[in-house]
Amino acid sequence: MAVRCDAVIMSRSEAPTPQGTAVTGNLHDRLLDRLLAGLPAEAVLTDPDVTASYANDMASFCEAGAPAVVVLPRTVEQVQHVMRTATELRVPVVPQGARTGLSGGANAADDCIVLSLTKMDRILEINPVDRIAVVEPGVVNATLSRAVNEHGLYYPPDPSSWEMCTIGGNIGTASGGLCCVKYGVTAEYVLGLDVVLADGRLMSTGRRTAKGVAGYDLTRLFVGSEGSLGIVVRAVLALKPQPPQQLVLAAEFPSASAACDAVCRIMEGGHVPSLLELMDRTTVKAVNDLAQMGLPETTEALLLAAFDTPDPAADLAAVGALCEAAGATQVVPADDAAESELLLQARRLSLTALEAVKGTTMIDDVCVPRSRLAELFAGMEGIAEKHDLTIGVVAHAGDGNTHPTVCFDAADPDESRRARESFDEIMALGLELGGTITGEHGVGILKKEWLAREIGPVGLEMQRAVKAVFDPLGILNPGKLF
Amino acid sequence: MAVRCDAVIMSRSEAPTPQGTAVTGNLHDRLLDRLLAGLPAEAVLTDPDVTASYANDMASFCEAGAPAVVVLPRTVEQVQHVMRTATELRVPVVPQGARTGLSGGANAADDCIVLSLTKMDRILEINPVDRIAVVEPGVVNATLSRAVNEHGLYYPPDPSSWEMCTIGGNIGTASGGLCCVKYGVTAEYVLGLDVVLADGRLMSTGRRTAKGVAGYDLTRLFVGSEGSLGIVVRAVLALKPQPPQQLVLAAEFPSASAACDAVCRIMEGGHVPSLLELMDRTTVKAVNDLAQMGLPETTEALLLAAFDTPDPAADLAAVGALCEAAGATQVVPADDAAESELLLQARRLSLTALEAVKGTTMIDDVCVPRSRLAELFAGMEGIAEKHDLTIGVVAHAGDGNTHPTVCFDAADPDESRRARESFDEIMALGLELGGTITGEHGVGILKKEWLAREIGPVGLEMQRAVKAVFDPLGILNPGKLF
Repeated sequence: MAVRCDAVIMSRSEAPTPQGTAVTGNLHDRLLDRLLAGLPAEAVLTDPDVTASYANDMASFCEAGAPAVVVLPRTVEQVQHVMRTATELRVPVVPQGARTGLSGGANAADDCIVLSLTKMDRILEINPVDRIAVVEPGVVNATLSRAVNEHGLYYPPDPSSWEMCTIGGNIGTASGGLCCVKYGVTAEYVLGLDVVLADGRLMSTGRRTAKGVAGYDLTRLFVGSEGSLGIVVRAVLALKPQPPQQLVLAAEFPSASAACDAVCRIMEGGHVPSLLELMDRTTVKAVNDLAQMGLPETTEALLLAAFDTPDPAADLAAVGALCEAAGATQVVPADDAAESELLLQARRLSLTALEAVKGTTMIDDVCVPRSRLAELFAGMEGIAEKHDLTIGVVAHAGDGNTHPTVCFDAADPDESRRARESFDEIMALGLELGGTITGEHGVGILKKEWLAREIGPVGLEMQRAVKAVFDPLGILNPGKLF
Repeated sequence: MAVRCDAVIMSRSEAPTPQGTAVTGNLHDRLLDRLLAGLPAEAVLTDPDVTASYANDMASFCEAGAPAVVVLPRTVEQVQHVMRTATELRVPVVPQGARTGLSGGANAADDCIVLSLTKMDRILEINPVDRIAVVEPGVVNATLSRAVNEHGLYYPPDPSSWEMCTIGGNIGTASGGLCCVKYGVTAEYVLGLDVVLADGRLMSTGRRTAKGVAGYDLTRLFVGSEGSLGIVVRAVLALKPQPPQQLVLAAEFPSASAACDAVCRIMEGGHVPSLLELMDRTTVKAVNDLAQMGLPETTEALLLAAFDTPDPAADLAAVGALCEAAGATQVVPADDAAESELLLQARRLSLTALEAVKGTTMIDDVCVPRSRLAELFAGMEGIAEKHDLTIGVVAHAGDGNTHPTVCFDAADPDESRRARESFDEIMALGLELGGTITGEHGVGILKKEWLAREIGPVGLEMQRAVKAVFDPLGILNPGKLF
């Protein structure tokens, strides 16, 4: 049976067999014996109830296998031991962080070793002169962010899950967040890596200097590789000086199209907002329903813009004027940090709120050139109507990165089918508009049929060949990406 | 004879045979016939006097072979034809831009096809809303910079050779420049590429969106790959809004160590200069000798700091105070753009001025964590003394990226030997201090023996395997990198 992703949760019996040798009987015992030769007993979990809890990330509608074992190493040597064992016994390995991913990229393969990096969670160094941090992969994004703040420094990447997700997971997915419009994505903050290869050897990539061009950029090859090329066990991260507290403005628009026009005017005008987010009416209503935030439900689109410049009020005034010129019906700059935080909280609640609408969501991640954003919004509205579905859209509008979120009842097979169809149609539309199927969530299992459509047959062939260089046995996170 | 680089110009008879089949007799005729089947006659140069002028980049002390032919394609299809021909006949191909490189990365191999991309020099698109430019590889950096300025946009990477060097060459080397301390290097501005592979197939990588994580980041793999993986025929580049005109401050220090201390204080203090450059006494004197610029020759180190913020004078005042705290004997902020430009001109003249000292230079490119910069300067002084050599140092100090420039007389074999030894000792010192052998100039021929020392045997094995994926016949820029 071909490995594919359906919008409904597959039953265990339907789950596909991943690449690699099935771990049954004697092999299972040998695997445990070998693992325990290099790992303490408490780092090797085999209780099926426990291992099942490591089976999937937050894209729970993608298929997930049953792990043979979950290992929780604390040292590089232990990770090397796990990989040597996996290579020796040809057992698939699925690396995991906090499993907050949205593409099934961390979902277990049947009979695999789940390699959870969450216990390798030390911040090894913070250096304000060199503006770097050296961390283990299991450090939680928010923990690092707060730790560097104490040194007057700033680690920008801020996925919505930043209070839970790990730096290793962020590196695996090349995660984005709200700040990317000014500060870029995770990839731009990874200077060097220590990676345990599939065969257990340790390789260092990159540097701890501000610049460096010695050889091919293998660091960036690993960033966003979704655990399919090696296991990141240490990262040197670039930091920025902590900017001033940002101030947020909210602008109401009579249409998504007008809001997108404002986004274009803001970017064309040379402004550099630290955040430029868009919530559509469905999302605004969902957030109000969940958290009674008193957002204006009469609006068709709510645009949030922020500046962390020395004089944010002046920047907000200029951007407010552009919003009005684009047809905003109301423009409300926050007076202070507290008001700004409230607006951001509304934005951060969006996906949770949309999940509450019908019980299940499929969160898309289509990114288009921002000049095509209005067309994407118009097209998504048409797709929702055609399939009679509720699709709420939140967007990192400044980046052209939208998260159209299909709300559906997973118990309703027809609605589930329509949800999947609409999900695919949105990706097709994104590609038509010169965009990508994934701006920041990754391909995982969810979008692997689409990767080939985006990068074409030559690109796919080369990607597979690169994979084979680092993972000749195909044991690293099999069934993901392609 | 092993391929290695000496500090003296090798005679042609000593030049090593590059990988690939020697193009002699009939093969040479067949090569020309095949090339002319897909290229106009004026795009195929065979006059040995002419082809010899394409033999090397600006690292003229590295060996260079004699090209069989120079081709100057104007279209993607013509590049594909060249690569198909090269693959068919197993002829090495050396891609070239303006040949301003400093590592021999564009030097010809014997009997190769030199593939000059300089005629593919169209700017295809500048889009102020999406903040991108789409260009062919032969566009000169300064041409692009000025063209985007007219749209209120800014293409930051500014190598010293920016008036001559091409975007394709910048991509091949992952070039830096003066602005990197604030704006980063070329790699951070390349969103997507069209690449002609060794076998002539066309592959697109990356995107034209602000974000995108679909599959492995092959774009970044090509950036800095020195023409060894494929031929870049089109690039989508990210642009920034044009910042305000920068204002420059000059500070004199009684020692390089004090200047390095100032650099650390500035960076630790959270400042974001748009330029932070250091010239040592030797360099200052050389610039005065060349251009009578009236720089203060009594100084041991001259630090230039610039800000392109809304209120640069305030930033310069703050940074000036830090310089004084670090022991600066004089701090002179420029009053206006004209004064600022004069100081920058002195900096930009440095390498030319040092070349005039003894006729020949070896320009190193060691980058260390900026917290180790003072140790690097102290060590370099010791190396110069030990070998009784003049070594002038200019540095992108804010990045820890130094260009120690060994001035020597190439006609003096003993001095040439000492120059080479000192050059190597500086790289060894850089690695000892946690740095890299090349911050922005690339490995080319000059540093290939050092690449292995920096990245280690596992890294080297993986880099070679990646090369083999894209260039299984080894025809792309053979003898470079490793």
